[in-house]
Amino acid sequence: MNDPTLALTQQLLRQASVTPDDANCQNMLAARLSAIGFRIEHMRFEDVDNLWARFGDSGPVLVFAGHTDVVPTGPLERWHSDPFAPTIRDGHLFGRGSADMKASLAAFVTASEQFLAKNPNPKGSIAFLITSDEEGPAHHGTVKVIEALKARGEKIDYCIVGEPTSAEEFGDTIKNGRRGSLSGHLIVHGVQGHIAYPHLAKNPIHLLAPALAELASTVWDTGNEYFPPTTWQVSNIHSGTGATNIIPGTIDALFNFRFSTASTADSLKATVHAILDKHQLEYEIDWALSGEPFLTDHGQLIDAMRDAVSEVCGKTPALNTVGGTSDGRFIAKYCPEVVEFGPINKTIHKLNECVAVEDLPKLSAIYEKALEKLIA
Amino acid sequence: MNDPTLALTQQLLRQASVTPDDANCQNMLAARLSAIGFRIEHMRFEDVDNLWARFGDSGPVLVFAGHTDVVPTGPLERWHSDPFAPTIRDGHLFGRGSADMKASLAAFVTASEQFLAKNPNPKGSIAFLITSDEEGPAHHGTVKVIEALKARGEKIDYCIVGEPTSAEEFGDTIKNGRRGSLSGHLIVHGVQGHIAYPHLAKNPIHLLAPALAELASTVWDTGNEYFPPTTWQVSNIHSGTGATNIIPGTIDALFNFRFSTASTADSLKATVHAILDKHQLEYEIDWALSGEPFLTDHGQLIDAMRDAVSEVCGKTPALNTVGGTSDGRFIAKYCPEVVEFGPINKTIHKLNECVAVEDLPKLSAIYEKALEKLIA
Repeated sequence: MNDPTLALTQQLLRQASVTPDDANCQNMLAARLSAIGFRIEHMRFEDVDNLWARFGDSGPVLVFAGHTDVVPTGPLERWHSDPFAPTIRDGHLFGRGSADMKASLAAFVTASEQFLAKNPNPKGSIAFLITSDEEGPAHHGTVKVIEALKARGEKIDYCIVGEPTSAEEFGDTIKNGRRGSLSGHLIVHGVQGHIAYPHLAKNPIHLLAPALAELASTVWDTGNEYFPPTTWQVSNIHSGTGATNIIPGTIDALFNFRFSTASTADSLKATVHAILDKHQLEYEIDWALSGEPFLTDHGQLIDAMRDAVSEVCGKTPALNTVGGTSDGRFIAKYCPEVVEFGPINKTIHKLNECVAVEDLPKLSAIYEKALEKLIA
Repeated sequence: MNDPTLALTQQLLRQASVTPDDANCQNMLAARLSAIGFRIEHMRFEDVDNLWARFGDSGPVLVFAGHTDVVPTGPLERWHSDPFAPTIRDGHLFGRGSADMKASLAAFVTASEQFLAKNPNPKGSIAFLITSDEEGPAHHGTVKVIEALKARGEKIDYCIVGEPTSAEEFGDTIKNGRRGSLSGHLIVHGVQGHIAYPHLAKNPIHLLAPALAELASTVWDTGNEYFPPTTWQVSNIHSGTGATNIIPGTIDALFNFRFSTASTADSLKATVHAILDKHQLEYEIDWALSGEPFLTDHGQLIDAMRDAVSEVCGKTPALNTVGGTSDGRFIAKYCPEVVEFGPINKTIHKLNECVAVEDLPKLSAIYEKALEKLIA
C-alpha cells in the first residue's frame, strides 16, 4: 500500500522518542508543514520540545493537538519485531507509538496537505500544538504552550486531540471530555506499642479500617449523560515496622478519584474529610489535583467530527468520556470546543503496539472532512 | 553491700550473652551448683546451649527455669554506663539482663545454696532448666530440654520461672499463666488493573476493608478470672505496586492473637475464616501457633509462692497472666504447676536496664522460702 499517511507514520515510528525525548519528530512534522505554508514556532520548556505551527491569520482557528513522545517499550524480547523498526504484519503496522499517537500525527499532516491543496484560502486557520511530554509529568508541554498563546492573546476555537479513542472498531468512539483526576496521600496516626499490650497502643490499621470501608462503599455521584459515576480507588496502602510483635504508629494510603462533572474536587475533598472526621481519626492528607474534568457537550466541532466519522466509517460514533487523562484537560481551559478522536486503543502502552494499516487513510480523511466542514 | 546474690548477678552481667550466645554463663552456674551436689548436664541443640542440673533423686521435683541470653543493647551511647560492665548507681544495679533475668538466675543459685546448707536431705529434688534462647526463636531451648526429659520419663512437679513479673513494686505480681499467641499471614486476592478503569479490576484493599473493620471490632471473648480478654492486632499491612495509577492485585496482612483460655486456637481460626468468608473474599491464611495459653489456677506451688512473697515483702501479690509469652508455655505442657516470679520489669528490653540492689537478697529469700515450703 502506497499511502502518504502510512509513509509518514513509519517515518515517525523509526524515531525512538521516549518521553520526554522528541527525537527529531517535531522537525519532521515542521518540515512538512512549512512546505505548505505553515509558520513554525519551536517552544522548548526545560527538557521538553513543543511545536506550534499555524496556517492562516483569521478565525476560527482549528488546532490539531498531539504528542510525539511514546511510553517505554517494556521487555524487547517480548516484541515480535523491533518497536522502533515499523513492521507490517497481518494488515497491521507494529511499532511503539503507532496507535498512541504517531498515526494521528501523520494523519493531521496529510489531512492538512490534502485540504490546503483543495482550499488554498480557507475561512479560518489551521494550527498544530505538538508536545513531547504527554506521557510524562506533562509540566512543560501542552500546558505551557497554552499559557504562551494566552499571554499573547492568540485565540483558538476548535481542538481535535489525536488520542486513540476507538475501542472495538475504528470510528466507534469520539471522546468529548475526560474525567478529572484528584489524588490524595493519607497518613493516619495511631500510637505504636507492643502487640501484647494493645491497651497501651492505638493501632492505626484498626482505626482506619471502618473509615476505609465507608470510603470504598460511598457513591460519590451517579455521573451524567456523558460521564460515568465518579470512582475512588486506593492504589497503595502500607503500615507496619516489619516486626510481627509491634503495633505500628501510622498507616499510609495513596488514593485517586476519577471524577465526573457531577462532582468537583472541593466537594470530593469535603466528603473524604467528613468521613475521616466522623471516625475521629487523627490524620493528614496531601492533595494533588492533576486534572479538572472537561466536557464539550455540543457545538460545531462535535457535529463536524460526528458527521466526518459517519461518512468515512459508515456508522455514527458514540460520545463518551471514559479512560485516563489526556492533554485535552489543559486545552479545554482555553478552547471552548475540544474533542478527541483517533485509532483503536487496544494495544496502547502494551507490547506489540499496532494500528490497522487500512485505518490510516480513513483517519486522514476524517480529519480532512472536519477541516472542510469547519473552515473550508 | 556484700550480698552473694548481688555478687553472682554482677558476675553474670559481665558476660555479653546476647541471644543465642550463652557466653559461659551456664558454666558459671554449673560450677556453683556442682559444688553443692547438683548433677550437671549440658544439652546443646544446634546453636543453643542449655543446662539441666539436678540435686536429689526423689519427687517432688521443683525446677528453677530461666535463660542466660539477653536482648541486644541498642545504641551504646544512650546507656549511662557500659551495659556489660555492671554498675551500681542510686541503689540500682545497671546492666543488660539485670532484670531479665540474670538477677533471678543468681537468686536461684543462692537460694539453693542457703536451702541445702540448712536442709542437706530435702524431701524432693531441686533442678535448674536454663537456656540461652528465650529471647530468640526459642526453637532449640526449653522446648527441646522438656522433650529430652519427657523422652526419658524424668518427671517434674513444680516450676518457678524467673521472669521479671513485678510491675510497680517488687513482689506485687506473680504470673500464674500466660496468654496464647496465634499469628496469621493473610493474603487477599483481587484483580489488578488501571485506576481509570476500576470496573475491569477488583481492588483487594477495598474488598478487605469491611472485613478488617469487622475483625477489628470483634469481641473474641471476655477473658476470665485470670485472663484479660483475647486481643487481635494487625502488625503489618501492605498493598500496592508503588505506581499511583494501578489497582493492586493482592493485599498482605500479618496479624496476631494474644488469647485467653476462654478461647482456643481453633475457635479463633474458625471465627476469622467465617468473617472473611462472609465478605466473600478470595484469600489464603498461613497460620502459626507460637504458644498455647497456660494457667496454673491453684495448687501447692501457688500457695507456697504467694506465702513466700507475702512473708518477705509484707504484702500479698496479685496473680495475673498479662504480658508477652515466656518459656513457661513449653514447661506447662509437661509440668502441672508453673508460676513465674521475679524483679520489677519496667526497664526490661530498654536502655539502662536495672534492678534494685535491695531486691536481690529478697528475691533469693523468696525462692528459698518456696523450697522450704515445698520440699524441706
